Amino acid sequence: MVNVAIDVMGGDNAPVEPVKGAVIAVTSQDGIKVFLCGKKDVIEAELKKYSYPKDRVEIVDASEVIDTGEPPVMAIRKKKDSSIVRGLNLVKEGICDAFVSAGSSGAVLVGGQVIVGRIKGVERPPLAPIFPTDKGMSLLIDCGANVDARASHLVQFAKMGSIYMEHVLGVANPKVAILNIGAEEEKGNMLVKETFPLLKNSPDINFIGSIEAREIPKGAADVVVCEAFAGNVALKMYEGVGSTMLGALKEIFTQSVLTKLAYLMVKPSLKKTLKRFDATEYGGAPLLGLNGLVVKTHGNATYKEISTSIKQCVTFKEQEINKKINETINILDK
Amino acid sequence: MVNVAIDVMGGDNAPVEPVKGAVIAVTSQDGIKVFLCGKKDVIEAELKKYSYPKDRVEIVDASEVIDTGEPPVMAIRKKKDSSIVRGLNLVKEGICDAFVSAGSSGAVLVGGQVIVGRIKGVERPPLAPIFPTDKGMSLLIDCGANVDARASHLVQFAKMGSIYMEHVLGVANPKVAILNIGAEEEKGNMLVKETFPLLKNSPDINFIGSIEAREIPKGAADVVVCEAFAGNVALKMYEGVGSTMLGALKEIFTQSVLTKLAYLMVKPSLKKTLKRFDATEYGGAPLLGLNGLVVKTHGNATYKEISTSIKQCVTFKEQEINKKINETINILDK
Repeated sequence: MVNVAIDVMGGDNAPVEPVKGAVIAVTSQDGIKVFLCGKKDVIEAELKKYSYPKDRVEIVDASEVIDTGEPPVMAIRKKKDSSIVRGLNLVKEGICDAFVSAGSSGAVLVGGQVIVGRIKGVERPPLAPIFPTDKGMSLLIDCGANVDARASHLVQFAKMGSIYMEHVLGVANPKVAILNIGAEEEKGNMLVKETFPLLKNSPDINFIGSIEAREIPKGAADVVVCEAFAGNVALKMYEGVGSTMLGALKEIFTQSVLTKLAYLMVKPSLKKTLKRFDATEYGGAPLLGLNGLVVKTHGNATYKEISTSIKQCVTFKEQEINKKINETINILDK
Repeated sequence: MVNVAIDVMGGDNAPVEPVKGAVIAVTSQDGIKVFLCGKKDVIEAELKKYSYPKDRVEIVDASEVIDTGEPPVMAIRKKKDSSIVRGLNLVKEGICDAFVSAGSSGAVLVGGQVIVGRIKGVERPPLAPIFPTDKGMSLLIDCGANVDARASHLVQFAKMGSIYMEHVLGVANPKVAILNIGAEEEKGNMLVKETFPLLKNSPDINFIGSIEAREIPKGAADVVVCEAFAGNVALKMYEGVGSTMLGALKEIFTQSVLTKLAYLMVKPSLKKTLKRFDATEYGGAPLLGLNGLVVKTHGNATYKEISTSIKQCVTFKEQEINKKINETINILDK
């Protein structure tokens, strides 16, 4: 049995979607037990909507909620009875294997490090969102957990990302690239110039060199390694351009009777294509390198992203990802 | 008369588009003289296609071409008779007010600094592309000239960008924001945390705080200040997502007879919208803070971007941008 704690109070669609996602995960797949963390009465009210295996859904009453606006360090320290702190503690205590939250990114990142703790040898746990591309998906690692990272951190990100991509998402021998401002080896800032030869000489990853941000949506690499500031800029620009262009497209299709008719004609193909580019289809972003698994979904995650994330937690455990990370990171100690 | 040197040999569409852009600039607007730098016979052959005022088009014979793949520093040093070096020297010698090139970014950036030289007091000259947004356009400064910049550099970028946006592009009291990974003041990497209070206390800019990359395409700020690595990532991700989504759209509209018909129905609105998001419609990126003006257009620039860029050189001179930059940067010396 894989035990997954769910933050029922986190995200724009709490509590409806987290509960629905959890119920769908347990009803569609055996071997999962969910621990719903949040206000008991709220959860009970939601659960009444569904029929589900009672022995695989447990309520963990948590009276407090951490808002996205709260300073994370303080929130984690003060709100001991929040859904996030309770959920993370279940992982720490070994009761749960993973924790999934659509709530405050800052609190999840800080709490993951402080409460769950790092795998020995892991210097900094990176946040690694999955990115829809023309060819499928890529992992962008790190996208916000550790700004001002050092070269040695980036090398670890590459290794951990590579393991996750191969064993959880099923991409054989994933191509690893470093985010850069030009394709040539001599390009880049000091951090990239220092990291590049280290990645080149890492025997346990399939390093293909530099990648410009322009090539990421085309799927030119499976794992894109970057410092968190640049990674966050890349991720949010992706989201921003996407939503701005969708807005413009919507405007076009609602302009006249003629364009509305045109919309009906392309609707099936358009929906299919948009779905391909919808990041929420692919599950949340794992915070890697912790003694357990912590997954941060999008703030606007629906039941689909939640249930996909829960199922990825199962693969994560079955594939013994943390054992693999441990072995790869601590290869010199063996 | 404003004298503008044009790199006829640079970019994907050389020599056709640079020559066409130059001819259109001089025929559509008085007071411009263009100096076409490149191989004389090539330029003469192109010019034969047009009728134009002969006294405002001069050929500057340059036998060499700098390729985009060449290491920039070496290319600038060795290829003294290249179109880029010749054009930049015209600015240095005061014969021309500005130089416009669609050629090697690296060579233009290096050459601009080495040959044309910086305005006294300017620490680093930033490259500032214009960015189409939902509301019009924004200036993203710096997008690739100076990686690993310091806080004092970013403050100068903010001031120079603000002057350019207001006086060349006509945006009154432009809103200046710093690119960040969250909207709150305490967010960011070391550089942003150090720069934020300096910008906040600059009396000569309209600083509105942090901006996330997601908000840039929405036009939330007129001038977005950033270190060159992050800026370059933002710019290229913008281009990458745009082209990937356009590709997907194209796929949809060519899928069947029905979707092809739908395309015909939305074509006028679609073209209008796409034009709004086409960066090449807005003129090239100025390299600011030099003793003269150097403009880098997109590598795939057509005559339109070239001629728009040439006309912006006129506004640049008329508005005495460099005098304004000089006064703002050296305000303490007065």
